[in-house]
Amino acid sequence: MHPDLPHSQLKIRRVRLDTGRENVVVISRQSKALRAEIFRGFSRVELRLNGKVLLATLLITDDDTLAAQDEIGLSEPAFRRFAEPVGTLVAVTPATPPESLEAVRAKIRGRTLSQAEIGAIINDLAHYRYSDMEIAAFLIGSASFITSDELLALTGAMAQAGTQLVWPDPVVVDKHCIGGIPGNRTSMVVVPIVAAHGLPIPKTSSRAITSPAGTADTMEVLARVNVGVEEMKAIVSSCNGCLIWGGHVNLSPADDVLISVERPLSLDTREQMVASIMSKKIAAGSTHLLIDIPVGPTAKVTGAVEAMRLRKLFEFVGDRFGRTVEVITTDGRQPIGNGIGPVLEANDVMAVLGNDKDAPRDLREKSLRLAAHLLEYDPKLRGGAGYARARELLDSGAALKQMQKIIDAQGPSTCSTELGSLSFDIKAAHDGTVSAIDCLRLNRLARTAGAPLDKGAGIRLFKKIGDHVEQGEPLYRVYAFDQPEHDLAASAAAAGNGYAVDGHDALPSKTAS
Amino acid sequence: MHPDLPHSQLKIRRVRLDTGRENVVVISRQSKALRAEIFRGFSRVELRLNGKVLLATLLITDDDTLAAQDEIGLSEPAFRRFAEPVGTLVAVTPATPPESLEAVRAKIRGRTLSQAEIGAIINDLAHYRYSDMEIAAFLIGSASFITSDELLALTGAMAQAGTQLVWPDPVVVDKHCIGGIPGNRTSMVVVPIVAAHGLPIPKTSSRAITSPAGTADTMEVLARVNVGVEEMKAIVSSCNGCLIWGGHVNLSPADDVLISVERPLSLDTREQMVASIMSKKIAAGSTHLLIDIPVGPTAKVTGAVEAMRLRKLFEFVGDRFGRTVEVITTDGRQPIGNGIGPVLEANDVMAVLGNDKDAPRDLREKSLRLAAHLLEYDPKLRGGAGYARARELLDSGAALKQMQKIIDAQGPSTCSTELGSLSFDIKAAHDGTVSAIDCLRLNRLARTAGAPLDKGAGIRLFKKIGDHVEQGEPLYRVYAFDQPEHDLAASAAAAGNGYAVDGHDALPSKTAS
Repeated sequence: MHPDLPHSQLKIRRVRLDTGRENVVVISRQSKALRAEIFRGFSRVELRLNGKVLLATLLITDDDTLAAQDEIGLSEPAFRRFAEPVGTLVAVTPATPPESLEAVRAKIRGRTLSQAEIGAIINDLAHYRYSDMEIAAFLIGSASFITSDELLALTGAMAQAGTQLVWPDPVVVDKHCIGGIPGNRTSMVVVPIVAAHGLPIPKTSSRAITSPAGTADTMEVLARVNVGVEEMKAIVSSCNGCLIWGGHVNLSPADDVLISVERPLSLDTREQMVASIMSKKIAAGSTHLLIDIPVGPTAKVTGAVEAMRLRKLFEFVGDRFGRTVEVITTDGRQPIGNGIGPVLEANDVMAVLGNDKDAPRDLREKSLRLAAHLLEYDPKLRGGAGYARARELLDSGAALKQMQKIIDAQGPSTCSTELGSLSFDIKAAHDGTVSAIDCLRLNRLARTAGAPLDKGAGIRLFKKIGDHVEQGEPLYRVYAFDQPEHDLAASAAAAGNGYAVDGHDALPSKTAS
Repeated sequence: MHPDLPHSQLKIRRVRLDTGRENVVVISRQSKALRAEIFRGFSRVELRLNGKVLLATLLITDDDTLAAQDEIGLSEPAFRRFAEPVGTLVAVTPATPPESLEAVRAKIRGRTLSQAEIGAIINDLAHYRYSDMEIAAFLIGSASFITSDELLALTGAMAQAGTQLVWPDPVVVDKHCIGGIPGNRTSMVVVPIVAAHGLPIPKTSSRAITSPAGTADTMEVLARVNVGVEEMKAIVSSCNGCLIWGGHVNLSPADDVLISVERPLSLDTREQMVASIMSKKIAAGSTHLLIDIPVGPTAKVTGAVEAMRLRKLFEFVGDRFGRTVEVITTDGRQPIGNGIGPVLEANDVMAVLGNDKDAPRDLREKSLRLAAHLLEYDPKLRGGAGYARARELLDSGAALKQMQKIIDAQGPSTCSTELGSLSFDIKAAHDGTVSAIDCLRLNRLARTAGAPLDKGAGIRLFKKIGDHVEQGEPLYRVYAFDQPEHDLAASAAAAGNGYAVDGHDALPSKTAS
C-alpha cells in the first residue's frame, strides 16, 4: 500500500515520555516525511524494520530536542516495544489501520460479530495496534449489547492472547473476589490453608487500581510478588500455592489493554467483568474456581437480583469452557478485617494465620468459609468435611507454616512494615450502635492518606456494624506519613466519616463516591 | 473536592509538542504532586489559577527538560488555551470529571438524553473539557441510535456553542455540498452570481481534511481566506458575499471537536452529518439553505433511498429551526470540472466565470442550476426566472466582476499559482468509451501527488464519462512538485487508474478506498 518514499526513513530517538499504554511517536514539523499527516494534525503511523511493524499515534513537535528533522521520537512504551537502538533508521509511513477495526465499526452499527472477528480484534488489542480512541470504540460499541456467543468468543480470545499456564494436576483450584470491599484479604488466608491441605492453588492477584490496596500490594509487604512464569511454576510445585502479582506473568494482556481504557471512562459492564475475570482464570489453568460476590449498599453489587444475574453469567461461561465455577454471595455491607492499606491488612492476615486472640473474626470466618468450598473439590475429602478441615489446618498452625514456606519461596519483601508516623482518630459523636459503614468512603479516605503508595498508610477500624460505641470513643484511626496527606485525609473525614451510628446519622449514600 | 496540597503548586513550562485537539500536560515522575496519579499511569488533571480551569490528560516524564520536579509542562494546545506565562505557579489536582460525562454513560446504556444534558455535553466539548476517549464515548454512544429530539437538541446546542452571525437582511442564502466529488467547486461560481444579483451569501467553507482540496484551499489560490468575523461582515456588506475559511470565524466549535475524533475513527453517521452541517449553517445566520447531495457509485451517497432519508433529515431539522432548506440530488458519478487540486480547480472556476470557450461545461451547468435555486429565494424575482437570471449574470461578466470585487475585499493571495513541474499522463489502454470514473481513487491519487499541501499538485482530466477515447490517448495528467510524490502517484495510478473504458475494464469498486 505504501511504497517507501526515500525521505520516509527516519532515525530513532528516545523520548522519555510515559504515554501509558498507547504507542506515541513524535516527528518534527519540519520533517520531509509524512507531510500530509503533519498537516492533518492527527494520524496513526507505522514504523517498519526487518518485518517488525509498530503502529503509533503521531504528535508533531517544534522542538529539536524531541525530534530533529531527520528523526522520529519514540515515547517510552513505543521505544520499549519496538526495541531498536537509538539512531536506527526506520521506515515511517501512514498507518494501514488494523482490518479488525471494520468489525468494530460493524458492532457500532449493531451487527453481531463472529468468533473470527472478535479473535482478530483481541489479537490486535493484545499487540497494541489500537489507539486509545479505537479501544474506546470497541468497548462502547459492545457495551450496549453483546450476545452469549460474543461473550464466549471474547473470553476465549482474551484467554488465548497471552501466557497460558498448564498444570500437571487434575484439580487446580482458584478463588476470585469481584472487589470493592476494603480489607477483605481472604486470599492470603485461603491460599495457605488450601496449599497446606495439598491442593494446588496458583494464585495471581492484581495491584490496587482505584482501591487502597490489592492483594498483590498487601502480599508485597511480606514477600516479593514480581515473579515470572517459570519461577511461579517452581514455587507452586514446591509449596502447592503462591500469592504473586498477575501483571508479571502476562495472563490475558488484552484484558489489561481494555481495562486501561475502561477505567478512565468509568465503564463497567457485567459482560466485560465476566470476560475479564474468566479469561484470566482460564489462562491461569485453574479447573475449579470460586467467585466471591460481596453484596451491600456501597459494594459493587447492591442487590440479590444483580448478584444472581452476574452469577449466571459466570456459570454460563465457566460451563462452556469446561471449568467448574461456583459463585457465592457474601456480606458486603462493611470492610472485612480491621485494616485498610497494605501493612494494616498484612497485619490482619498474619494475626488470623497466627491464631492471635485479637485477630479479626470476620476475616477468619470468611476465609474459612471460602477455603471450605475449595477443599471440597478434593475428591479424597469426605463431602461436607471442608470446613472442619480448613479450621483444623488454620488452628493447628499448618496454614501459618505453609504461608512461611510460600513467603520463603517467593523471596523477601523489600518494603517497610512501619505504619505511618502521623495519625488521627475519628470519634463517635454520640452514644449508640454502628448501623452502617460506607465502603467507598473508607476506600477513598485510605487512598487520600497515601495507600497503597505508602504501604503503611491507611485505616485501622475499632468498630464494626452492630458494635456499641460511646460518645468520644474512637471509631477508627487514620495513618499517614506526610503532613499534607494527613491534613487532606483529616478534612475529608471531617466532611463525612463513613459511619452511621444508631440512626442518628444519615445512612451513607452510594453517590458519596 | 480537592483542597490544595502545598506541593501541588507547579511552575508552568511550555512543551513544544502539538497534541492536536487534546490538552496534554507532563509532570516529572519525581514530582511530589499527584503521586497517586503518577502511579496509576493514566489520569486527567485540573490546572487552576484565578478561577481559570483547564482539564488535561497527564503524561509522565523522566526527562527534566520536559518537566523538572517542580514544573508542569503544557503541550501546545494546553499552553495556548491556559494562556499563562512560563514560570507561573499553578495549582494542579486530580480532575473532577465534567458532570456531563454521566449523561454520556447513560446514553451508552441506552437512555435518551434531555435537551439540558445534550447542552451540557456540547458546552463541555466546546470548552475542551473532554479527553479524546471521552469524545469517542459520546460519539459512539450516540452512533447506534438518537431520537429526533436528541438530534434537534444536538444541532441547537452545537449552533449556540460558538460565534453566531446575525445579518440585517430578511433573506440570507447559503449552499452546502456534502462532499466527496473531486473538483466540484460550484460555490466559487455560485457565490459571485448570487452576490452580483444582490442577495447576501456569506459563504464559509472548510479546508480539505481527507480530500485533495476544500473550497477554502482553492479560494486561497485567488485571495486571502483567513478572515475574522468583523472583517467578514464588512466584506459581505460591500460585496453581498464572501468565500472565506470557516475555521477562522469559529462557527460550531463543538463540531470541530467532534470531527477531530470522527475522522480517525472513520465514523460517519447520517445524524452526525446533519447536526454538523446544520449547526454551522444556523450559526452562520442563513435563512435559506440549499443542500447538494451528489449520488453515484463512488460518492458519499450511493443510492436514491439513502439520499431521500438524508434529505428528510435535513428538511426536518431545517423546519424546526425555522430555516428554509431545499435539498437536491446531483450527478455524483464523476468529478465536476476538469481540475482536481487547488490551482487546477481555481483555473476551472475562473474559466467558467470568464466564459472561456474551454471552460468545463459540467461545472458551468451545475453552478447555474444551484444559483438558479438560490436566486428564486429573492421575493422580487419572478417564479421560474432563476436560471435565466443566473445565466445572464454569468454571461454578461457581472459574476466575474463580482468575484474580482470579493477577491479585492478579501485581499491578495500569497500562494503560487504554478502547476507542479513534474507530470505524467495516464493513457487509454484501448479504444472505447469512458463508462465510469472512480471518485475515491482520483481523490486519493491527487492527494498522493501532493494536493492540497502543494497547491499546484493534482490532476487535469481530459476525458469524462461518455467520451470516446482511442488507445494511447491521455485520460488525465498528474502534476507533482517532487520526485517522490511523482513516483508514488505514478505507481498508485499504475495499480489502478480509476477509469473504466467501454466495459473492457472492471468497474471501479467503492472498496478501493
